[in-house]
Amino acid sequence: MSADEQAIRDAVAAWMKASADGDLPRVLALMDDDVVFLGPGRPPMRGKAGFAEASKAMEGKIRVEGASDIQEVCVSGDWAYVWTQLTIAMHPAGGSAPTHRSGPGLSVWKKHADGRWVIFRDANMVTTDRK
Amino acid sequence: MSADEQAIRDAVAAWMKASADGDLPRVLALMDDDVVFLGPGRPPMRGKAGFAEASKAMEGKIRVEGASDIQEVCVSGDWAYVWTQLTIAMHPAGGSAPTHRSGPGLSVWKKHADGRWVIFRDANMVTTDRK
Repeated sequence: MSADEQAIRDAVAAWMKASADGDLPRVLALMDDDVVFLGPGRPPMRGKAGFAEASKAMEGKIRVEGASDIQEVCVSGDWAYVWTQLTIAMHPAGGSAPTHRSGPGLSVWKKHADGRWVIFRDANMVTTDRK
Repeated sequence: MSADEQAIRDAVAAWMKASADGDLPRVLALMDDDVVFLGPGRPPMRGKAGFAEASKAMEGKIRVEGASDIQEVCVSGDWAYVWTQLTIAMHPAGGSAPTHRSGPGLSVWKKHADGRWVIFRDANMVTTDRK
């Protein structure tokens, strides 16, 4: 495995851990300033600032715990894409039963001049599991 | 605009037209043999053969007419990604009212040795429009 592929896999793992920990600064450090998050049935969420705002609105209301099963990492120069299968539990504050969600993700990553890989475009196809 | 970006934009337009025409061989020519189609709430559809089979099962049952509003094309060597906003009308056979769907798409394209750009990975986040 190339050093770049390993770095991207580490960044995906760091993303999942930082999300579960509710560590917003750490999550934000893993994305480009001009990131765009895409998903079904909602408008594109643009920019790190937009993500930060949406995350702060959810703070203390829900805890997201997830696993990312990476299917593929493909690097071309300073660009890469990652296909992953996500499994997520959304724990509402107050201890009521979590909602389980799953589905694929396809993301485009970019290598910054300092060597860090960050998310640049993200297609999130996670939906609520049927009971 | 680079020649590669133009070629990819032309391929997206050709895809939409071939789909509307129900021209399966033309659609298949625009994808890699090892293409993977991802979407919410369904398993990954793998390979050109899988796509052909699914398309044949729908033949004569539905006509798909769509428009693709390209938001971004980004090329890196023999790889590229395309972010598009899709608007689709599904016309059932027999002339009953079409269903309208829309949403974003994020796809990874690959340049073959002969210079052709083909779809390699596709995240389709199109959902049925609310009435």
